[in-house]
This record gives sequence, C-alpha cells and structure tokens, in this order.
Amino acid sequence: MLREGNHHDARIDPAIPDRAPLPRADIRLRKVSVGPVAVFGSSNFPLAFSVAGGDTASALAAGSPVVVKAHSSHPGTSELVGRAVSAAVQEHGLHRGVFSLLFGSGAVVGIALVKHPLIKAVGFTGSRSAGLALVEAAADRPEPIPVYAEMSSTNPVFVLPGALATRAAELGEGWVGSVLTGTGQLCTSPGLVFIPEGPAADTFIAAAGEAVAETIATPMLNRAIASAFDGGAGAFRDHGGVREIARGAGDDDVAFGGVAQLYVTDSETFQADESCSRRYSGRPALFVTVRDMQQLTGILGGLEGQLTVTIQSDGAEPGAAELLDAAELKAGRVLFNGWPTGVEVGNAMVHGGPFPGTSNSQTTSVGTLAIERFQRPVSYQNIPADLLPEAVRDDNPLGIWRQRDGRLAKD
Amino acid sequence: MLREGNHHDARIDPAIPDRAPLPRADIRLRKVSVGPVAVFGSSNFPLAFSVAGGDTASALAAGSPVVVKAHSSHPGTSELVGRAVSAAVQEHGLHRGVFSLLFGSGAVVGIALVKHPLIKAVGFTGSRSAGLALVEAAADRPEPIPVYAEMSSTNPVFVLPGALATRAAELGEGWVGSVLTGTGQLCTSPGLVFIPEGPAADTFIAAAGEAVAETIATPMLNRAIASAFDGGAGAFRDHGGVREIARGAGDDDVAFGGVAQLYVTDSETFQADESCSRRYSGRPALFVTVRDMQQLTGILGGLEGQLTVTIQSDGAEPGAAELLDAAELKAGRVLFNGWPTGVEVGNAMVHGGPFPGTSNSQTTSVGTLAIERFQRPVSYQNIPADLLPEAVRDDNPLGIWRQRDGRLAKD
Repeated sequence: MLREGNHHDARIDPAIPDRAPLPRADIRLRKVSVGPVAVFGSSNFPLAFSVAGGDTASALAAGSPVVVKAHSSHPGTSELVGRAVSAAVQEHGLHRGVFSLLFGSGAVVGIALVKHPLIKAVGFTGSRSAGLALVEAAADRPEPIPVYAEMSSTNPVFVLPGALATRAAELGEGWVGSVLTGTGQLCTSPGLVFIPEGPAADTFIAAAGEAVAETIATPMLNRAIASAFDGGAGAFRDHGGVREIARGAGDDDVAFGGVAQLYVTDSETFQADESCSRRYSGRPALFVTVRDMQQLTGILGGLEGQLTVTIQSDGAEPGAAELLDAAELKAGRVLFNGWPTGVEVGNAMVHGGPFPGTSNSQTTSVGTLAIERFQRPVSYQNIPADLLPEAVRDDNPLGIWRQRDGRLAKD
Repeated sequence: MLREGNHHDARIDPAIPDRAPLPRADIRLRKVSVGPVAVFGSSNFPLAFSVAGGDTASALAAGSPVVVKAHSSHPGTSELVGRAVSAAVQEHGLHRGVFSLLFGSGAVVGIALVKHPLIKAVGFTGSRSAGLALVEAAADRPEPIPVYAEMSSTNPVFVLPGALATRAAELGEGWVGSVLTGTGQLCTSPGLVFIPEGPAADTFIAAAGEAVAETIATPMLNRAIASAFDGGAGAFRDHGGVREIARGAGDDDVAFGGVAQLYVTDSETFQADESCSRRYSGRPALFVTVRDMQQLTGILGGLEGQLTVTIQSDGAEPGAAELLDAAELKAGRVLFNGWPTGVEVGNAMVHGGPFPGTSNSQTTSVGTLAIERFQRPVSYQNIPADLLPEAVRDDNPLGIWRQRDGRLAKD
C-alpha cells in the first residue's frame, strides 16, 4: 500500500492565471501524519491487536510515532514484541522516539497517556466501558483528540428460510466452528443467531447442540472475562424464557476454563429483555427463533451498531436484498454465507462499524484503510517547485496516482 | 466529483479459494452516508457557509439528509435559500426529509438538534465558544457523534527578509486588501503579521498604515462581533507595549461600523501576552517585529493550530524550507506569497487545520474532500453478484476507478 501511494490522496489543481473574474492559484494536497499516537493492546489478540498489531502498523505507516500501553493480560509477550520493534527501529537508524512501550494500570497510565498534550490520536480494542472511558478522557482535554475504539459486537447472524431448508445441519455445525474459535472471545464471534421457527430450525439447533456437547472447556483470557461469561450463562439458565440446549464438558485443570454453552429463546423474550443482546467478551451463545422474514428484518433494524452482520441465504432468496440494505446501516461488514470470525487483512476490509461497535464508524482498525485514522490533509498553495513535498511535485518522483483537476492520473 | 466517483473509495479484493493455509473470501468496500447531518449556518457567509453552503452540499453529496439551523444574523436570506432548496427537492422527486431548515436559538434549538439520536454528524462554522459547546453536546450523547467545527484562526503571515527587501511597499498594500475584505471577518483573514525588524519593515508598515488610513468604516456582521472588535481595539490602545500605526475614518451612518485599525508590537510583548494572539472574528490587525529568522520559526512553533499560514518569501530564500515544515504542522493550508482570503472550492483545498482552528484536523469544510466527513466505509463479503452495490460490481456500471487488490483500475 505504501508503495502504491494512494494513501497520500495527492491532488493537484494547477493555477489558472487568466481565469475570470479571479485567477486560480496553484493548489496541491497530500495527507500527513496527525502526530504521535497512543495504542492500547487488547486482551484477546496478544499479537494482531497489541504491541505490533494493526493499530501500531497503520500509525507508523501514516508517519506517526507510537506509544503503546501494554495489556496486563500478556506483559511477557508485550515485552518480547516491544523489544523486537525497538531493535528494528534502531537497526533502521530511526529516531528512538518512533516507538515506546508502557506497562501499568489502564486507569492511571492509560488515561495519563490519552491526556498527554503531545498525543494526537488513540487506537484501542477492548471493552465498551474501557473504550468509553478513553473517549471521555480525550473529549475532556483542552485539545480534544479522536479515539478509535473498537469496543464490542454481538455479530448477529440471520438465517433465511431457503438456506435453512437446504443445509440446516451443515449451518449448525459451521456456526459452532466459528463461535467457539478462541472460546468465543473474538471481536467478531457470532454469538447471536436468528432463525425462522419450524422443523428446519430444530435440525439446525440440534446439529449445533450436538457439536457444542462434544467440546471440553478451554481457557478464557483472564479472570474478569471468565467471570463475566459465567455470570451471563447463569442469567440465561435462571431466565424463564431462555432454554439451555447443550453444554460442553468442564475441565478443572484448565485455568479460567470456559465451558461452551448454547441457549435458545423466542423473539418476544429477546425483544422484551435487553440482557439478551448485551455484549461482552465470550458471551454464551443465544439462538432466537422468529416467526417470519418481516420479523427478522424488524429485529435487525432495532439492533445497535455492529462490527459484522451475517446473512445465511440461498443467493437472492426473497427478503435477502431488504435484509442486506438494513444490515448495511448497522455494520461495518456484511457477509453472505460464511462466518465473521477470520478478519482478512486486506484493502477492502472494514473492521469497524456504527456505535457502539466502535466509537467512530468512519474508519477501520484492520486493513490498509486503517491508515486514514492517523492522517490529516494539508493544502500547499503557490509553493515553489523545489520546496514541494514529493507526493505533489510535477515530476511525480514517487510514481503515484494523483487527482489532477479531480481526475486520477500518474503523470 | 460525483461523476468521477473517487469518493466511493471502491475496493475489490477478489476471492482466492485455493490460498493456503486458508482461502480468501471475496471482499469489497465502498463508502456510504453516515446518516442525517445537522448543519449550522455561519454569521459571516450567508451563502457559502450557510443554508446551501459547503457543509450542506457535501452532506447531500454523501447521501445524508440535512437539517440546517439558520443563523440568527440573516433569517431572511436563510428562508429564501431554504425555500429554493426545498423546491429543488420537490422538483426532483426526492423525499421531503432530505432537507429541513430550523430557526431559533443556538443554545436551545441547536443543542437539541445535536442531541437528537437520529443525527449522526454535525457541520459548523463559527466561534470557538459555540463550536466547543456543540463538541461537548455531541460527546455527551449516549452515542457520541463527530462534530466538524471550523472555529477560528488568526492566519499568521511570516514575511521573510528577501521578500521584504524587494517588495516591502507592495506587500504592505497587498496585505491591507486581504485583511480588510469583509471588514476582517473572514475565517482566513490574515490579522497577525510577523516581520523582521529594520528599515524594510518600516517601509512595509508605513505602506500598510497609509492604506488603512484611507479607509472608511464598513458594517460588521452583528452587534456582538462589532462589540468584540471595539473591545479588542481598546485593549491594544491601552496596552503599553502595543503602538497604534493607523486608523480609518468612522461613519456614524454605518450600523455596527468597523473602523480599520493597525497596531504594532515587538516579539517580546507578543510572546509574553496571550491576548495578542487571541482569536475572534474581525480582530484588529497586529504586526509583530522579530529579530531574525530563528525567532520567526520559534514563534510559529509556539502558535496554536490555524486554518492557514502564509509565508512571504522570494522563492527558496534561507530558512523558507524550515518555516514551511513548521507551518505544515500548524495549518490546514500553507501559502507562499499571495494572501489566504479567497478560499478556492477545488479538489486540493483544505479549509481546516489543527485545533483550535477546527475541532477535527482530519478533513476540510471546503472542496471535494469535504464529503469524507459524512461517509463511512462498509465491507461486503461474499455477497451475490446481483445484490452488490453498483460501485463494486464486476462490470463497473458507474465506470469509476477502483482499487483491485490495492491497485487502481477501471476494469
């Protein structure tokens, strides 16, 4: 992406000296770094969303120095990775200030970092409460700064009648494979599934239940997450309108062991009780049976913003287009068939979405577009040729695409 | 811009079914509207930054319905323009909700508009206090939303020795033409000028002073702005370290008449007294004499964020490159020779800049890039061809440039 150079967003509007009634000056634009960036390592991805993860990579790519606050769940991994990044900084002769790593309490070190006047943007992946605390701290600064917080998502799956009729058992098993990845603690874990009621739904539920029942407990990330999971599961079990379908085997030798569990309820209970859609890492999975397509689309319209919405559909079956339109308003990524776990690091990926999926729906924390979070545009008016930045020089030394009078060209 | 279609930021990463260890899904990206936008008309541009101004145009271009809060300084103009827009909405068969116009108090109607749950972004041009009130209201919502507030700027001008030596008188007269446009109430009015001390500076100051002395009072926008201007001028006159150079003629027949005035001080007084750099609409102009280039660059580094920084220089004279680098960190637009008033509506324009020039340095309120304020990206994973949005269909019915595996192409 850096070699292609599209992230410069280079634009040249050449001078028009004889324009009437007023001449036009030579004006050129490129994007520069916003300045130093604070990055918060997540608990659930000690590599991809931590010290040297996507936030750090996109901030460095934008030209921003990075200060990482290590997550307290994996200090050793953080130190190993931090030392590797520091060695690379030194090896390439970069300024030592390009990368720093801090350890300590989020409430103390983290907030102090966000409040520091030199920090100009924040990248974060974690819980809604921690994310909103950073948003609030950043808004309370004398100079408010943007916080790109990826906070939480239930990643709802909508199963359409056609898909259910032809591959109910396959869908049930496929779903279990996705939802149990990482003991359900992935940001994109599809923990909430809506299914049209009927015999095919029963097949789907039975297949999923059988797969869940075959599992053995796996470790969750830390005590707080394991405890929230157990609390949520207990609330489902005690809930008059929610029924337990299946449960995996426990294992006392596994620290913070998460036992896979599957619950089912109906749409009335789901819509009447906010706790059924509450989001937190590794929440126990819930199926919701619905009466018809109209109710399915209505439920989607009532949900909060999500990282992903998945539609299981046999191509363009009735109602699929309407559901897709509704999903686009709720999520940063919409999938047909397939499962939302497994976030491709590419040019077309959006790992983001409307609030409270993230604190800023206008970007992504995964993929090449993530660089935009840490850039700002600058106009150069009537600057002498030899002082212009390379991205907007007439001879285009970077060989990049640029908008010339609004049209993309390389020369 | 809409016909060129670059604002879609369309991207296609085709599926790679046989990739090891995991296949890649088909993933496509385009940008969609963030949702309904609130626009606040400014006092100082009843057309360009008001009911049908740049904020409204860029929000409508993004696909966002717009609700405008009219400025109380020009309710009649607002109504005329609002009726014209409503007629156009009806004529083109668009939904009536595409455009609305509200009148009333900013503190009541304005804040209520920003707090409304359906509003997803805010565009504003006005004072720092009003802008920060909107930023705070938006941050306090259950769902925080972005506020794009263009608030204030002193638009400093740095005159370099070479330019001063060759065209001191011409620069002095040129500056007056820019700073007195709109009685100094333009967002980009260059009300603060730094000049290396010496005989050439005296020529520059004398030429500017003569031009100021020839003026007659012109109306300011409203009572509050006229009163702030008079208060600021009085403070300069009463200031022991500030000297009055020239003053235009008054005119009792002009309502809220602003009398052009020019003051001069030295760098020590300027740096010791925060009131010398305070920003408000139509502030009286202040020249600051400095000892040398090093001091000039140091003063620039100490300034707050600006919409514009102007450098008067004879090409690449010594220190110009360093000053340009420092200016890029402080402003959304950097100019060489020429004056910052007159904001071109183009593809390469940035009318924005670091805080407190604006509340969000990452965008512009003028020019085609302004559309990005009201867009968010959506990924489409494995969507059936006949359900894909036009911008990312294989046959490219819009005929737009798209990134395919990260490379721009039209097919």
